[in-house]
Amino acid sequence: MADSWVNSAERTGADLHLELPAEGPRRAALAEALRAAVRDGRLPPGVRLPPYRSLAADLGLARNTVADAYAELVAEGWLTARQGSGTRVAERAAAPAPGRRPKPGPAVPAGPLHALQQGQPDAGSFPRTAWLAATRKALLAAPNDAFGPGHGQGRPELRAALAEYLGRARGVRTDPSRIVVCAGFGHGMRLLYEGRVLRGPLGVEEYGLPYHLDVLHAAKVTTVPLPIDERGARTDDLRELPAVREVLLTPAHQFPTGGPLHPDRRSAAVDWARGAPGRLVLEDDYDGEFRYDRQPVGALQGLDPDRVVYLGSVSKSLSPGLRLGWMVLPEELVEPVLAVKGRRELWVSVPDQLSLAEFITGGGYDRHLRKMRQRYRARRDQLTAVLAEHAPHIGITGVAAGLHAVLRLPPGTERSALKAAAWHGVGLDGLSFFRHPAATAPSADGLVIGYATPPDSAYPAALSALTRILPPPP
Amino acid sequence: MADSWVNSAERTGADLHLELPAEGPRRAALAEALRAAVRDGRLPPGVRLPPYRSLAADLGLARNTVADAYAELVAEGWLTARQGSGTRVAERAAAPAPGRRPKPGPAVPAGPLHALQQGQPDAGSFPRTAWLAATRKALLAAPNDAFGPGHGQGRPELRAALAEYLGRARGVRTDPSRIVVCAGFGHGMRLLYEGRVLRGPLGVEEYGLPYHLDVLHAAKVTTVPLPIDERGARTDDLRELPAVREVLLTPAHQFPTGGPLHPDRRSAAVDWARGAPGRLVLEDDYDGEFRYDRQPVGALQGLDPDRVVYLGSVSKSLSPGLRLGWMVLPEELVEPVLAVKGRRELWVSVPDQLSLAEFITGGGYDRHLRKMRQRYRARRDQLTAVLAEHAPHIGITGVAAGLHAVLRLPPGTERSALKAAAWHGVGLDGLSFFRHPAATAPSADGLVIGYATPPDSAYPAALSALTRILPPPP
Repeated sequence: MADSWVNSAERTGADLHLELPAEGPRRAALAEALRAAVRDGRLPPGVRLPPYRSLAADLGLARNTVADAYAELVAEGWLTARQGSGTRVAERAAAPAPGRRPKPGPAVPAGPLHALQQGQPDAGSFPRTAWLAATRKALLAAPNDAFGPGHGQGRPELRAALAEYLGRARGVRTDPSRIVVCAGFGHGMRLLYEGRVLRGPLGVEEYGLPYHLDVLHAAKVTTVPLPIDERGARTDDLRELPAVREVLLTPAHQFPTGGPLHPDRRSAAVDWARGAPGRLVLEDDYDGEFRYDRQPVGALQGLDPDRVVYLGSVSKSLSPGLRLGWMVLPEELVEPVLAVKGRRELWVSVPDQLSLAEFITGGGYDRHLRKMRQRYRARRDQLTAVLAEHAPHIGITGVAAGLHAVLRLPPGTERSALKAAAWHGVGLDGLSFFRHPAATAPSADGLVIGYATPPDSAYPAALSALTRILPPPP
Repeated sequence: MADSWVNSAERTGADLHLELPAEGPRRAALAEALRAAVRDGRLPPGVRLPPYRSLAADLGLARNTVADAYAELVAEGWLTARQGSGTRVAERAAAPAPGRRPKPGPAVPAGPLHALQQGQPDAGSFPRTAWLAATRKALLAAPNDAFGPGHGQGRPELRAALAEYLGRARGVRTDPSRIVVCAGFGHGMRLLYEGRVLRGPLGVEEYGLPYHLDVLHAAKVTTVPLPIDERGARTDDLRELPAVREVLLTPAHQFPTGGPLHPDRRSAAVDWARGAPGRLVLEDDYDGEFRYDRQPVGALQGLDPDRVVYLGSVSKSLSPGLRLGWMVLPEELVEPVLAVKGRRELWVSVPDQLSLAEFITGGGYDRHLRKMRQRYRARRDQLTAVLAEHAPHIGITGVAAGLHAVLRLPPGTERSALKAAAWHGVGLDGLSFFRHPAATAPSADGLVIGYATPPDSAYPAALSALTRILPPPP
């Protein structure tokens, strides 16, 4: 509807920038300007030129002048004119001048042969058709103001859909007014810490994503590592760390070691936060939708929405290329976060926000998650089966959840396994890569396997390569 | 002629302007806006409301939404509906029932009655169908890795399309390897200055967007205002400012005063940059596609791609909601900018990048721009016609270009005009709002009019309101 003019508007060709000298015959000047544009590659071979009347109007010339100039260049071999296809730059109009050949982009390192790095969903499973249908429905139904400057909090359609979805699927207690849309977990942390909404010191799990520490340290936030045991992060230790103001946890599925936070530790975290004004728990629910052995544990946020900041995104569930995430905030933090993010939406694509809202409310998101749970579960089962067969001495830690698993290695073998991985072209990280530099507990040897990363067709070969890099039985 | 159009619009009652908050369900928002209009007398008892379809078109709502809101207000006693007489405000419209009001979202200021603020394209003209077609084609054709983690430089499809388009339409000399995709002009400036790729001091035009100064000052960059005269920014003064390392210019169309940078001043800027190592020109080509009286002036970047950083976006040409822009960099800046932005794409939606690439290469972008040029040119012509008729003593400065115009006011009258604007519900800014705090040249009185902002149906009434706030002839 907003677009009905497309069909009725004159079908014009390319927009073209030409500088004509003020003096002299117009036709010759235009012809020379067109030759120059072809010569220096601004008009590349095959490109269609604007119709006479458009270019004539643009340049303030008579239509015949443009027609004559085109004819001249067709005659000279610069352009070709074919019935029904308009006037185009000839395919071999001019060799590109030396030095004009497009250079390759800056060094993008070739990936490993077998991609088992953690952190990526199966890119081949992006639900293109269903997502497109949601986009179509959402963009056609959107009010005009959706295409004006957006509101910094995020589209109301998306916040309403998220409030419903997160409540239903993750046990998050919120209404749309406490949700702020952001470009992913890292953006959320930047808003909170670079923006000085929170200031730390921040308790963190002694294993976690180094990128998160980079963001925090760039914001000059002190981080204090919490040991992890078989019940998860030792949140009961927080009482003994009086300087700590906030704590960042991965309660559903500790990243990367893989355990859920024990109910006692969940209570301890919330009790600690309630123990003094301004204390907060930050909940990184990065893969909470993916639990394979039972119902996922609900969000910690549900225990106390006024003491927990909940962060999630579609980076694991749909694609990290969408750059779309959300924060569910205690009410008094909404305004400070918006003051940092900006009243206008400066970061997150509004069409994507509308598409996700429709994808959620239309049921497509649930269907996609169900399908991906089956897929990833099968991947994990393949991994355990291959290990049971070929390396029964290697254990997998953590619960059946998420997109990655940790293989525990005999003490002192991680470095040689990583060397072997590099040799065999297996892309993965050692557990030590995720260890906080100030962690005090004894370090453990392990490999973090992202089993969602390879395409289906490449997965068996990747698993087979994995078995070749593992240390032999003792 | 423009005048009779204004009057006929007023007679039909089509100038009922309701500003809906960005928040919440549309029907509830519309119902509350109507209640407020009745309460504060803008809709007096007995007045007939616009037909569903007119108000729906004005507000970009579904017709049923309007019908439902009317029905709700009839049920509540605010409105009456009688066969053949349409819907009218009830003669004794009831006082609002307590507790019936929807809970307001967090501070979204209600917009003005007549939206003439600069900086926004016509949100109702977003080419929904053509954009969706491009999205569909792009997402179905994309390789799987498009849905994995993106590369921080931006999708190669988009960088290739931009290199071709910018060369052809804007005279930019680049290949895809020198383009970095970003989330808009502000993000580009943050990468350069918060990321310390550049450090200033930065010469800026003495009139510009305060938001840009906010970003620069947050990054602790010293800005030095350059005076503007009838040839544009005094780039010839740069020689006398030895501390200045970079200069930010709007060469195609000075923002907001509206003149193009004179060829001598373009040369002076590039000559200055060549005069010492590390000097750079930053070119903000925010509306370069929109020139109505002649061919747009080509980008300054074409004069010396190694000395000019070129910045552009779709915020004026398509929608600020896409959060999609680009920088064309001197070769040696590409790596430093990527080091700041991140090797992985953390900011810009990959589906939108792919869609824009297809929209450009498929010709949709050119068609849209040509259509919008006609539309905005007509808006500008209406503005000049209304002024010539009702306020011939008020001049418009600058060239026929872009989405805004500056009305020059007699000295000392800007403040009273702004007060009148507030009184009459006309949203716009005074010229002084855009003046650098350290500018030395005598300040000029003026109003900056964004003629692209209102919906078509609301524009005549907005122009009519504008004439009422202008100072009388001397």
